[in-house]
Amino acid sequence: MDCLREIETDGNSNPIQISRLALDIGGSLIKLVYFSRDSGDHEDPLNDSVRISNGVNGRLHFAKFETTNINDCLQFISANKLFFGVTIHLKATGGGAYKFSDLFKEKLGISLEKEDEMDCLVTGANFLLKAVNHEAFTYLNGQKEFVQIDHNDLYPYLLVNIGSGVSMIKVDGDGKFERVSGTSVGGGTFWGLGKLLTKCQSFDELLELSQRGNNRVLDMLVGDIYGGMDYSKIGLSSTAIASSFGRAISNSNELHDYKPEDVSRSLLRMISNNIGQISYLNALQFGLKRIFFGGFFTRGHSYTMDTISVAVHFWSKGEAKAMFLRHEGFLGALGAFMSYERHSLGDLMVNQSVQIPVDASSSTDTNYNPLERDLNETESMQCSVYQA
Amino acid sequence: MDCLREIETDGNSNPIQISRLALDIGGSLIKLVYFSRDSGDHEDPLNDSVRISNGVNGRLHFAKFETTNINDCLQFISANKLFFGVTIHLKATGGGAYKFSDLFKEKLGISLEKEDEMDCLVTGANFLLKAVNHEAFTYLNGQKEFVQIDHNDLYPYLLVNIGSGVSMIKVDGDGKFERVSGTSVGGGTFWGLGKLLTKCQSFDELLELSQRGNNRVLDMLVGDIYGGMDYSKIGLSSTAIASSFGRAISNSNELHDYKPEDVSRSLLRMISNNIGQISYLNALQFGLKRIFFGGFFTRGHSYTMDTISVAVHFWSKGEAKAMFLRHEGFLGALGAFMSYERHSLGDLMVNQSVQIPVDASSSTDTNYNPLERDLNETESMQCSVYQA
Repeated sequence: MDCLREIETDGNSNPIQISRLALDIGGSLIKLVYFSRDSGDHEDPLNDSVRISNGVNGRLHFAKFETTNINDCLQFISANKLFFGVTIHLKATGGGAYKFSDLFKEKLGISLEKEDEMDCLVTGANFLLKAVNHEAFTYLNGQKEFVQIDHNDLYPYLLVNIGSGVSMIKVDGDGKFERVSGTSVGGGTFWGLGKLLTKCQSFDELLELSQRGNNRVLDMLVGDIYGGMDYSKIGLSSTAIASSFGRAISNSNELHDYKPEDVSRSLLRMISNNIGQISYLNALQFGLKRIFFGGFFTRGHSYTMDTISVAVHFWSKGEAKAMFLRHEGFLGALGAFMSYERHSLGDLMVNQSVQIPVDASSSTDTNYNPLERDLNETESMQCSVYQA
Repeated sequence: MDCLREIETDGNSNPIQISRLALDIGGSLIKLVYFSRDSGDHEDPLNDSVRISNGVNGRLHFAKFETTNINDCLQFISANKLFFGVTIHLKATGGGAYKFSDLFKEKLGISLEKEDEMDCLVTGANFLLKAVNHEAFTYLNGQKEFVQIDHNDLYPYLLVNIGSGVSMIKVDGDGKFERVSGTSVGGGTFWGLGKLLTKCQSFDELLELSQRGNNRVLDMLVGDIYGGMDYSKIGLSSTAIASSFGRAISNSNELHDYKPEDVSRSLLRMISNNIGQISYLNALQFGLKRIFFGGFFTRGHSYTMDTISVAVHFWSKGEAKAMFLRHEGFLGALGAFMSYERHSLGDLMVNQSVQIPVDASSSTDTNYNPLERDLNETESMQCSVYQA
């Protein structure tokens, strides 16, 4: 089980009441978002939000499971009574909402109410960009900078959701969007090819390996072809990658002769670069200067974000900027969660006091290790739900 | 040695005199183009061209070697006296013209005169498109159709040269071009990753394997995520690839549990698709309706061309067409060859009687096997060189 955690208790050790749960069941991962209301009227010393009448204060929680371990997810939901207080209809998005519909009915007696995947991604992204402080940030050369989003100047933007595959969505407003492109070279490719090439047992292990690798061992650089020289006439330096994995052809080495670290590094760079390039080309086509990257592929991983940022910067000649989201992996699940609001509740407000880890502000952060600090798994956010 | 062939002899068993040789030394392959003049005045019954005064009739020949086996190439040049009659300066392009400059000097006493790689690619492509009948063709669903090029309506077009890496060049005329984009995911990636994953010993063996593979074993399809259903709202059928190699994550299989055929097929499809998509996005950006694909990656291989064509068709919603070139791998070498003409000779004319294999005309050609019929390796073309 990936991330089974005991449901939190309030200061008085009472179980926190869960009143909303939504799911995003993708090809690789199941993402859960659930809301726990505060059980009493005690003030949270960390929470300086103003209570508004008719609002229900509480927390949004985030959790994930591998889709292949869906039974663990069902057990987690059941054991923690995540659908206690909810109707027996659960909002769910992603292809798995269709694929596993019968399983949820059979095991938990729950009907999955299917919400459109792209719709949910956009709703989730718009919510985060508008309601949560310090949600979006740029990442370049190890430098993380939070971006202040002007709500009146948010649209249009390109949303690139990197899950198993990649969807690219032009977003023009709330509920106004079009999936304009995508690529099958995504997180599933990194993990799938990486598993075949390195025998890693998890995506995170593969990512961790890449941190210690050197892509020059397997990538054919311009200098490898030009005898150490730049191809300066067309602006390609000797260290630019001419051919990903191209050096593997020039000797008799077999797979086991290479370090898994180097294989993982070249693979991550190839895929990140490629996604950055295709994203930029699509942004250009539609005149979009802002590109937000979501989905579980990046996982706050510095090298991934850096490579995507460099690709966007390189191809746009500095005109476009890649931006990342702290709750990157939960756009769809959040969107599904919001669909309750559209149907039965008024609105979801996130207090301005959303807790940010102390060291997550703008900083030079070259040794960022996602395994030591995974925002997605450990964070919840303080918020209020307004009942209609 | 890849393609050592005895130099042809004329009807009287006299060695044919080689009077021009040019090289394109890339990261993976060395391509040679050389001209042999007719040794006598006898009429070739297959050649109905009109001799023009001051013209030298003869043949252009094409050959290739792996760059790692450059010594075989040197031996081939030396043994066959390919630089007999040429000055000791040889025209050469590609990064290897720089990298191996000293080697040619040392072993053969030849100075490589370096010609710009992009310049040569464009010159070679323009020459083929203008001078050679039945050079360009479309390929879709196993259907090959030669395209008649109107010389007055050739420009602008996008030239996509798929070598180890990929260059995308906007061509506006003779010598008028700009390298607008490229990708490191090219032929070197297919071969390099393929070698690591399948232990194939050659590019052609890997291509041949892919013919017998099934990409559904390793690729995660939309239907795999959606429980067999289409995601019709956004126009994705259940058989569309959602994530290349994404199925490898959903079970405990290791590399050796998969057939190399299936691995090769998924790899070829991933790379062909990706190149097709990025090419189209660049063509769109510059308003180019025609995309010509060159470079040794395709090698007349039906599945590769089909996938590139489908990608261009899909992303352009049928607006753009992928076109291929019969002498795809020799654009750079031809361009380097042409640079002799610019410097010392008048012009190179290809007779209209360029020999086309009987079955290479428009035909349904689903079982096309590049190993049985490789146009690039076995063909020469009848032509005349006009001395200035």
